[in-house]
Amino acid sequence: MHTQDGPRLSVGPGLGRDLRRIVGAEHVMDPGFGGGRYCHDMTDRGGVTGRPDAIVMPGSADEVAALMRWAYAQDVPLIARGGGTGYAGGATPVGGGVIVSMERLDAIHQFDPLLWRIHVGAGVTTRTVQRLALENGLTFPVDPGAAEESQIGGNIATNVGGPHCFKYGTMRAWVTGVRAVLAPGEVASFGGAQRKDVAGYDILGLLVGSEGTLGLVTDAWLKLMPRPAYSAAVCAVFPDAASGGEAIESVLASGTVPAAIEYLDDIVTRTVRGTAPPGFPDADGFLVIVDVDSGEADRNAVVDALGPAAFAPDPRQLWRWRESVGHAMIALKGGKLSEDIAVPVDQLAEAVDETQAIGRRFGVLGCSWGHAGDGNLHSTFLFSAEDPDEAARAGLAAEAVLELAVRLGGTISGEHGVGVLKAGYLSKQWDTTAVLAHRTLKHAFDPKNLLNPGKKLA
Amino acid sequence: MHTQDGPRLSVGPGLGRDLRRIVGAEHVMDPGFGGGRYCHDMTDRGGVTGRPDAIVMPGSADEVAALMRWAYAQDVPLIARGGGTGYAGGATPVGGGVIVSMERLDAIHQFDPLLWRIHVGAGVTTRTVQRLALENGLTFPVDPGAAEESQIGGNIATNVGGPHCFKYGTMRAWVTGVRAVLAPGEVASFGGAQRKDVAGYDILGLLVGSEGTLGLVTDAWLKLMPRPAYSAAVCAVFPDAASGGEAIESVLASGTVPAAIEYLDDIVTRTVRGTAPPGFPDADGFLVIVDVDSGEADRNAVVDALGPAAFAPDPRQLWRWRESVGHAMIALKGGKLSEDIAVPVDQLAEAVDETQAIGRRFGVLGCSWGHAGDGNLHSTFLFSAEDPDEAARAGLAAEAVLELAVRLGGTISGEHGVGVLKAGYLSKQWDTTAVLAHRTLKHAFDPKNLLNPGKKLA
Repeated sequence: MHTQDGPRLSVGPGLGRDLRRIVGAEHVMDPGFGGGRYCHDMTDRGGVTGRPDAIVMPGSADEVAALMRWAYAQDVPLIARGGGTGYAGGATPVGGGVIVSMERLDAIHQFDPLLWRIHVGAGVTTRTVQRLALENGLTFPVDPGAAEESQIGGNIATNVGGPHCFKYGTMRAWVTGVRAVLAPGEVASFGGAQRKDVAGYDILGLLVGSEGTLGLVTDAWLKLMPRPAYSAAVCAVFPDAASGGEAIESVLASGTVPAAIEYLDDIVTRTVRGTAPPGFPDADGFLVIVDVDSGEADRNAVVDALGPAAFAPDPRQLWRWRESVGHAMIALKGGKLSEDIAVPVDQLAEAVDETQAIGRRFGVLGCSWGHAGDGNLHSTFLFSAEDPDEAARAGLAAEAVLELAVRLGGTISGEHGVGVLKAGYLSKQWDTTAVLAHRTLKHAFDPKNLLNPGKKLA
Repeated sequence: MHTQDGPRLSVGPGLGRDLRRIVGAEHVMDPGFGGGRYCHDMTDRGGVTGRPDAIVMPGSADEVAALMRWAYAQDVPLIARGGGTGYAGGATPVGGGVIVSMERLDAIHQFDPLLWRIHVGAGVTTRTVQRLALENGLTFPVDPGAAEESQIGGNIATNVGGPHCFKYGTMRAWVTGVRAVLAPGEVASFGGAQRKDVAGYDILGLLVGSEGTLGLVTDAWLKLMPRPAYSAAVCAVFPDAASGGEAIESVLASGTVPAAIEYLDDIVTRTVRGTAPPGFPDADGFLVIVDVDSGEADRNAVVDALGPAAFAPDPRQLWRWRESVGHAMIALKGGKLSEDIAVPVDQLAEAVDETQAIGRRFGVLGCSWGHAGDGNLHSTFLFSAEDPDEAARAGLAAEAVLELAVRLGGTISGEHGVGVLKAGYLSKQWDTTAVLAHRTLKHAFDPKNLLNPGKKLA
């Protein structure tokens, strides 16, 4: 069990009554009765959980504001929660408090496909936005791993990425406005349907990636774009990370902008082959996958850049391989710890090799895969759930990987966020002045430290 | 003369001595001797100027930090200044203080063309970055109007756009890291060469567009991208803004993502024709210019969307037409006031028509041109510099245009920033809670209100 970071709550008997008054009796849940699924997220470390004092499902921005006013008056922590698919414990009630689940804020407020935009509630799933886009010849290029369950509000809270943010940018690039509730409980809008706005400070951008610690987003205006007419992938297997890294740099130097550049290291390539759908490459080594959506000429340039090893995968199978990675790796031993460091792209090969070396140093299997073009590694350490010692060593290896990221000039989190798992590590990455600026910001937006306390900042 | 907004400075005789000690005697300039060009920017309203107490040119981030420590100890305002090409008075010393010109921070710290990235000082000009990119088969797609003189630090401070940010995003999308000096005078880094980072709050994004009021950026890590292999433009003239707006929506609905969608209203089209290079269209009306960089099929789709009026301009002349607009319009009467409102794109035609109507209401010629795809209008009112009454009416018309932008669900500034000219208008656009959040942020980052006081916030 993770040690509790937030202020412990002492709620009087009026808690349930107050909450029922604000959101309606049918939208308050006792965590002891069916609320268990709101107490943890998808993080690999099963220990990150907690027991909230209540779970509420507000039905409007005004109800979220009323909840915050109540919380600020009663000194009760609020933990905003979307689909619960996070990997950093960011939406878990580690210190008690009230879970604010956004699932009822699932309205499509407005959809203008011909103008490439949609205004949705925070509780709308990523897949719903992707599907609406697709049905109208558009695409929402943000593609986090759990799109069926993840919600737009959580996508905003963590500034999610995915393979295609190499070309199209992370969530921040696709949000033109949010409505949010700020402490001590007022609704405010930042941006809207307009595509440009430099009138104010970028508070919209500040809320994106703030993991529910600065305000609670209730709805968002998103940009969409026409679905590219062309799509092709090229793969190649290289003997090792160094030659794979060189090939990736050749792709960058080829003058094309691929939609995504992914990789699996040799251990992951070998493991995935065992369960992969047909067509997975036979060769052992470092697998590079390049997705091109800008036409045949660019595809050919990528083929040239990857050299004689290049081959064209079955497009129907390719993303199944890629999506099967997490399950294939966890199946090996039953447990895994996956980090999400990002480094300058010329440091990728070293980070890949060092991840394996760190595993060896701690006596666990270390491997990685991820978004090569962005230098974003899912450095992973495997362990048996029945072996507490091995699990502990995997934890130490994961910590060493965070230090590796900083040493290579990168970040401890490229896409999962800091949550509670990495809350102590910000000062390893940032200098004292930068850390102080974070604390100043947090205090300015949440002076009572009631918005997701114990997360993001240590 | 604009009324002074900042705290008035009372500097003792030690000012020059202190500044010479920090940056060296040869890098301190008395405003009375050759410093005049540091006292105003390119704003149309010649009245925005001021007299600084000194002008300094620091040579390093550490010197900027020492300047800020001194300023914070002595209660002296600091006005960061790049190329002085702003349009909102943002870098003018309206309340006195010390101008911190970044021109000596002009080092190319690192350039990795094969990795699409460059690390430059804040004083490097936009054109230098564009040129280095171009010489290496790359592009820096941020294209503000005065790239020869404007500097990267100013591009960051205003989050500049330009025609091609329709497809490629504003400055924010191209900065992966900054080094900045925060009050009371410490150097901190936010981001770096890595392309993804969600570990902290987006303080990098907060500094972008903050107009020197939250911190002083000394250098930046920028992204570049391969130069598109294809480039073609398609134009068409439509009878009026309504039919032009419909044509633009047809382009959006065509399934292509143009690199830029620009427009000139009928008044501007007629005026520019008088001085334009050869090939300018003969027809009167609303001119739409669509730039395509993604291939022939997309160009053809745009031709179809624009209909029978579509024609292909001489690519060598096209951007000369576009760049001549400002000069052609000012030549009409000698004076102009240009705003930079942005509205949802489906409100473009109404904003164009209303700009002309507002001009008629105040008895001045109102017209507009701009970045149609982003709904970003340079709504402009012409006046004779010898006619103070007409100039005053142009000023009232410009204020009415800001109200129009808010009424249409848009922003008072799509790319110039708020500076001192629009500092009173933030509360017209934002609700009370949002304005309060801005003040809270400003106070958190600059508790003594010494960083460009009187700018951005009223």
